[in-house]
Amino acid sequence: MKIVVATGNAHKLSEVRAILSPVADSIVPLSDFDAPEPVEDGITFAENALIKARSACEITGLAALADDSGITVDVLGGAPGVFSARWSGHHGDDAANRNLLLAQLSDVPDRHRQAAFVSAIALVLPDGGETVVEGRVEGMLTREARGSGGFGYDPIFIPTGHEQTTAEMTAEEKNALSHRGIALRKLLPIVTELTLGD
Amino acid sequence: MKIVVATGNAHKLSEVRAILSPVADSIVPLSDFDAPEPVEDGITFAENALIKARSACEITGLAALADDSGITVDVLGGAPGVFSARWSGHHGDDAANRNLLLAQLSDVPDRHRQAAFVSAIALVLPDGGETVVEGRVEGMLTREARGSGGFGYDPIFIPTGHEQTTAEMTAEEKNALSHRGIALRKLLPIVTELTLGD
Repeated sequence: MKIVVATGNAHKLSEVRAILSPVADSIVPLSDFDAPEPVEDGITFAENALIKARSACEITGLAALADDSGITVDVLGGAPGVFSARWSGHHGDDAANRNLLLAQLSDVPDRHRQAAFVSAIALVLPDGGETVVEGRVEGMLTREARGSGGFGYDPIFIPTGHEQTTAEMTAEEKNALSHRGIALRKLLPIVTELTLGD
Repeated sequence: MKIVVATGNAHKLSEVRAILSPVADSIVPLSDFDAPEPVEDGITFAENALIKARSACEITGLAALADDSGITVDVLGGAPGVFSARWSGHHGDDAANRNLLLAQLSDVPDRHRQAAFVSAIALVLPDGGETVVEGRVEGMLTREARGSGGFGYDPIFIPTGHEQTTAEMTAEEKNALSHRGIALRKLLPIVTELTLGD
């Protein structure tokens, strides 16, 4: 069975393909279909991932995989969270989102700059089966953007145990430790089984 | 003993004077002194109120009262919280702060728009005595600004049991139910005793 990946974000699609490389030939992007975007009005990553995966499954009739992810900042009680992509008020403006977060936290000392990248990935099957897995990477926020790799909040996030931001790492380094990688690898056995015989 | 009120915000000073009207003659604003602004790097309202009151007490030698307050939004895990005044990245731009919060939550349905106004007020005495009290008003966020009274997030906040935003109320109505009023009234007995004989 083919698996449709419900994301309009080219960066995310590329990460998913890289991490699920054993089954890459079975992955099709939702952009191949004329699919309306569902309203993501969940208040958790898992809820939003399920909303997107259910919608994609219904429209395509294929197994559908969707990610909802973002950054959670301890001193903000977990925000930006599900609002990460629209933090500056405009959806998908990565630089504005990062700059706003740094400006909001400009007075916050290093000892209070703990944050985490979180990804929930939902897999919804045409027979109604649903699985949601989560990946989480702890770290801290920098005071300014560093590095040109990755996307989103990568330039201002340093994973615990590292000295580089995830935007200063190669794609391979980042995927090896990323929240999305952790979550996706939990799904790899199911996904591999689904795609047998494609 | 005179009491110095450590706020550079004219709206807050006016609210404090109105609510503490029985002792209004004993209140002096910190702006009467050449006081540097302390760095508010606390991560709770109480911490920041104490930072400001301790600094004002040390500089003036008077009893010092300071407020730290803001709005907490459930779906944001309590943010903006202590970052309320600089939510848009620029300290004190009320309209920008409100507009950003509404834009961030534009997809959030009414059932998830719970919020609260919270105020912590610290009283620090020259003898080292410290008291912190808190006031909290539950309510919900509107979808657009309404009313021209108040300041800060008043135009987008409706207290539970009311239909008007706190910016649509008179100053008297707002002070009767406000978070700052609730906190200040807890301090009134101590403050009254301090100012006896002024």
